[in-house]
Amino acid sequence: MSKGLLVVISAPSGCGKDTIINEIVKEMGNEASISVSMTTRDMRPGEAEGVNYYYVSREQFEENIRNGEMLEYTTYGSNYYGTPVGPVKEKLKNGKVVFLIIEVEGGENVRKIFPDCVKIFVIPPSMYELEKRLRGRGSDKEEVIKERMEIAKTELQRATEYDYIVENDVLEEAISDIKTIIRAEQLRINIMQTKLREVIENA
Amino acid sequence: MSKGLLVVISAPSGCGKDTIINEIVKEMGNEASISVSMTTRDMRPGEAEGVNYYYVSREQFEENIRNGEMLEYTTYGSNYYGTPVGPVKEKLKNGKVVFLIIEVEGGENVRKIFPDCVKIFVIPPSMYELEKRLRGRGSDKEEVIKERMEIAKTELQRATEYDYIVENDVLEEAISDIKTIIRAEQLRINIMQTKLREVIENA
Repeated sequence: MSKGLLVVISAPSGCGKDTIINEIVKEMGNEASISVSMTTRDMRPGEAEGVNYYYVSREQFEENIRNGEMLEYTTYGSNYYGTPVGPVKEKLKNGKVVFLIIEVEGGENVRKIFPDCVKIFVIPPSMYELEKRLRGRGSDKEEVIKERMEIAKTELQRATEYDYIVENDVLEEAISDIKTIIRAEQLRINIMQTKLREVIENA
Repeated sequence: MSKGLLVVISAPSGCGKDTIINEIVKEMGNEASISVSMTTRDMRPGEAEGVNYYYVSREQFEENIRNGEMLEYTTYGSNYYGTPVGPVKEKLKNGKVVFLIIEVEGGENVRKIFPDCVKIFVIPPSMYELEKRLRGRGSDKEEVIKERMEIAKTELQRATEYDYIVENDVLEEAISDIKTIIRAEQLRINIMQTKLREVIENA
């Protein structure tokens, strides 16, 4: 059985990271999945346990934090949101590719727990283009767009903490680039050890 | 201008490394080339300076060694063979992909001089298949094949010193895997720095 691969994806809001990863997961079928977050907020109509989120109580979430069972977490409003370690480990053990879409802040802890993870940062072709895309959504107020642009600048400064940079100019090319990175990472020596040993031992 | 990429390729004799790289270089055209070795042996009819080898005197070769201008070298019979650093540096500066096909022994020094190089080890699908291929050449005597198989076993043990392992079972797949690795490496943060800075500075 081949070793799984944990792929951490970060990007400023508006860079299209969700669109890219949803498309790749659809293409890869059973081989890949997006990590499901845990939250303390209530389940909404149409949502399902383990699909949209794992729903837990505040007490449970805080116990998970204390026990080191959260890969990363944050608070939004009065609720916790984060990634539980267990399901990620389970999928990796089964040789799957797991995508973890997280904030730059959360990325640091992930490498400590999963040293072999691959960190990809998605950048816009330009700040001008990013602003155009944010405005194109038509849903955000002027001050929200200004704030998002400021956050984007701060986040881009930290892209150097990642292994790979993928520019999302043409969507298809960004998808192809990330698929290329995944395939290359699967050829890395740490993942190919089993195959290598097989050839050597049957000598 | 994008930064070049030095790709070190090693493999036991009979694994098809030359066939693979020749094919990739043909496909990549002006973007890639195979590093030309330097030798002290005489030029043979049909050979050309800088195409088959750089031809130098024994004194010149030894001076290059003393001056640290040889990336790696070896002796075969009474002649020196090796890779001069200069032409590789020049091509990398021009953003090219340079393939360096060398023995496992020579690979160690390369990373010291070019820390960003990518090291790929090509393995056969099995030792049985390797032996079959060596016999298939029809040109080697029994003891030569036995010796090559022994050397292959020793070399395979050192594959763990490489970044990537590519199995050459189906030629087209091995070619595709190495092209994938090259593309992925071109998306690495150290190479994408320029693009990243461009986006940040035009903010």
